[in-house]
Amino acid sequence: MTELAERLSDILGPKGWIPAADARPWTRDWLDRYGAPPLGVARPAATAEVSAVLAAAHAAGVPVVPQGGNTGLCGGAVLGAPGGVILSLARMAARGEPDAASGSIEVEAGLVLQALHEALDGSGLMFPMHLGAEGSAQIGGLIGTNAGGSHAFRFGMMQDLVLGLEVVLADGTVWNGLRAVQKDNAGYQLRRLFCGSEGTLGVVTRAVLKLHPAPRQRATALLVLPDAAATVAFGTRLRAEAGDVLTGLEFFSEIGLELALRHIPALSYPLGTRGGCYLLVEVASASDCMPLEDILSATLEWGMGEGLVLDGTIAASQAQRAAFWRLREEQPEGQRLEGAQLKHDVAVPPGRIAEFLRAAGALCERLLPGVRVNPFGHLADGNVHYNLSPPEGAADFDGRAGEIGLAVARLATGMGGSFAAEHGLGQAKAGLADTLRSPEERRLMRALRRALDPGETLNPWALAPADGG
Amino acid sequence: MTELAERLSDILGPKGWIPAADARPWTRDWLDRYGAPPLGVARPAATAEVSAVLAAAHAAGVPVVPQGGNTGLCGGAVLGAPGGVILSLARMAARGEPDAASGSIEVEAGLVLQALHEALDGSGLMFPMHLGAEGSAQIGGLIGTNAGGSHAFRFGMMQDLVLGLEVVLADGTVWNGLRAVQKDNAGYQLRRLFCGSEGTLGVVTRAVLKLHPAPRQRATALLVLPDAAATVAFGTRLRAEAGDVLTGLEFFSEIGLELALRHIPALSYPLGTRGGCYLLVEVASASDCMPLEDILSATLEWGMGEGLVLDGTIAASQAQRAAFWRLREEQPEGQRLEGAQLKHDVAVPPGRIAEFLRAAGALCERLLPGVRVNPFGHLADGNVHYNLSPPEGAADFDGRAGEIGLAVARLATGMGGSFAAEHGLGQAKAGLADTLRSPEERRLMRALRRALDPGETLNPWALAPADGG
Repeated sequence: MTELAERLSDILGPKGWIPAADARPWTRDWLDRYGAPPLGVARPAATAEVSAVLAAAHAAGVPVVPQGGNTGLCGGAVLGAPGGVILSLARMAARGEPDAASGSIEVEAGLVLQALHEALDGSGLMFPMHLGAEGSAQIGGLIGTNAGGSHAFRFGMMQDLVLGLEVVLADGTVWNGLRAVQKDNAGYQLRRLFCGSEGTLGVVTRAVLKLHPAPRQRATALLVLPDAAATVAFGTRLRAEAGDVLTGLEFFSEIGLELALRHIPALSYPLGTRGGCYLLVEVASASDCMPLEDILSATLEWGMGEGLVLDGTIAASQAQRAAFWRLREEQPEGQRLEGAQLKHDVAVPPGRIAEFLRAAGALCERLLPGVRVNPFGHLADGNVHYNLSPPEGAADFDGRAGEIGLAVARLATGMGGSFAAEHGLGQAKAGLADTLRSPEERRLMRALRRALDPGETLNPWALAPADGG
Repeated sequence: MTELAERLSDILGPKGWIPAADARPWTRDWLDRYGAPPLGVARPAATAEVSAVLAAAHAAGVPVVPQGGNTGLCGGAVLGAPGGVILSLARMAARGEPDAASGSIEVEAGLVLQALHEALDGSGLMFPMHLGAEGSAQIGGLIGTNAGGSHAFRFGMMQDLVLGLEVVLADGTVWNGLRAVQKDNAGYQLRRLFCGSEGTLGVVTRAVLKLHPAPRQRATALLVLPDAAATVAFGTRLRAEAGDVLTGLEFFSEIGLELALRHIPALSYPLGTRGGCYLLVEVASASDCMPLEDILSATLEWGMGEGLVLDGTIAASQAQRAAFWRLREEQPEGQRLEGAQLKHDVAVPPGRIAEFLRAAGALCERLLPGVRVNPFGHLADGNVHYNLSPPEGAADFDGRAGEIGLAVARLATGMGGSFAAEHGLGQAKAGLADTLRSPEERRLMRALRRALDPGETLNPWALAPADGG
């Protein structure tokens, strides 16, 4: 046992320090692509313990990587080399009472997103962040990665939902920024800077989150559309006509539907028509006065009249609503069960999604003829999960994965978009950022990092590593 | 003429360089409280010229303060000592075409906010930023100060409306971050960090702004309420019932109405009832299907039934709507015409506004008996412009201004709020930040500043000055 391990074990006690031998469950990211054996796993129960852990590791010059629910897709919450400390916030999962009059709640970083949703049930309030991993993802990790998800186009990303933060800095200093107001211009927007910093600037321990009135009514439709161009045109109209109450605008494609239906027997498709593209549309309101179904039907009729929508249906029950959502949510799983896959998380200006899909499809076909493109995602903010399966019958991507990834990323970037829309950089894309973003931008990020963590002991492998990725 | 002046005159030509002798119009802030004579005023016409100016000033070690419409209230856009350069962006006021399908537009920093609103008229799109100074305030200044205004509770502050930025750094380096997507997690949120940095981290030259669908219908009500507690209770209900379409929720008080009616003859008050508090409520939608008046009437009736609303009326015409807004908008002018005044820009959690007003009123009365408190502002985000006039008959605040300001700021801070909600720190409140915010927070800000501008030539008197304010 090293001196640091001994010290951390003293600070945290047996419940708070998992030695290397038992650290397996925390070691690898959940896609099992990244991670090295740690010195141990620190599981502090309070901010003061987080501070003591960071101070001790800092003094010893040993890297620390904060880990939430470990649901990230870019290897940002595991070690890049053996011997560092994994800092798990799971034991800090307390929450305060929601403040209905002010629309906020204070929570600890280890609180699981779904637990927050459940705690708010019946309070008349909601926290409008929804994503596939919400059963495991923790608030601290969502902040560290600036999570987006399906409601971000309407309610914002994590950084838009954070009013205040408590953060422990690299040397153990605690910054108390637990304010509870939207408007706070007393200096730099530190709360925003920590969102998406992937544990490289500090460790989030508590947050004051913004809450919204919970919907009292909802309408959900599943639509079939001929192609991506029609989908974009219809989406633009819908954002104008129903933007005030629109809470979901998710798209997926024929190939994705096929894969999901093939591999997930419990799934069923409720319509007689098939098309090139599918839209899941949801409108919701906290007011009983909103004529949600009227708004949805009117836009649907318009779309059919224009030939943009081939078929569609509005969910008649809560069970049907859940079934519609499942068609969208099982897209990743359907593809995973098909075998090898390549995931890309890009964003382009929403009006250019069809153009992007056309150009990206041609690029991929050129690099690997027959490759199966399965794009799905969030239409209203242009966030496309541009995922690929190998050509029918092939086991892998014939060594072209890197080339394809770079080509897709470059295309999105060239269209004013991003190659890392909502999943972040982590270890997986730091190098891509060095390639695709300007040297000025990378230097800026390195300067910020060094300003807050001169010793670079906080998650040194992620985002903008010293060795340039 | 100094060597630097000569160099800048060479770079910018006669239209771009205003020598010291002619620099008077740019020298003082508009409240005439801050500002020192500059070496001259640089008025570049392109990003390359901004870069050349900053590089030259940087090499000479001469401070540069960027200036937009110079409508700030905290002295953040003028010099703190003679001899620096004022950098006016007024000649860079171009704009691109709005992209309706993606909901965005690219503009130069010198574009005046009202000119942007006018340019979007009839396009079906709007930029949802509204504040008193919009006839002069420029996009770059709004970004630099992270402006808020009356629509921020619904659509966000400036940082929420900026998708991409071009920024020239202290040494003249140009950072091109002109992306056009909401979701971009490829590293630190630089676009957010520059918002509200008051020209201390770089000079914004261009921005891609987020646009929303423009309203096609609107309903505006003026309400009379007994007191602040009733106003907060009614506001909470209204946010739940009409939050999807609520675009304005502005409050002012009886004393403010009285002062405005006394000093501004053109104003008239349309109701027979007076109360302790007044609310201007506006709902708007891009959809014709929204039953706006029904929603407003239903909530109004509820409020009357509960005794929270004493009286109210819905504007019957565009002219009446404008008249209602003017009652709110002339609050600052009414008070100014009354004589000496003290302005405070605080925020508290919206549910605690009444509690804040009670406590602050008692504090002020104790410090200066008879002082007249005139609070108005943005109910939904807790942003109170807590303004004071001297006791009836007194010409000033009897030397208690500083003490009162500190007490009010401390009270808001202690309630989880901010003493600098939407106006920023500038030169006026940097010292207050040193007093009221933790040393850890001020050190963080100093570290960020030094990381991006080690020579501290960019607006060195604002936000977090080297000498600690």
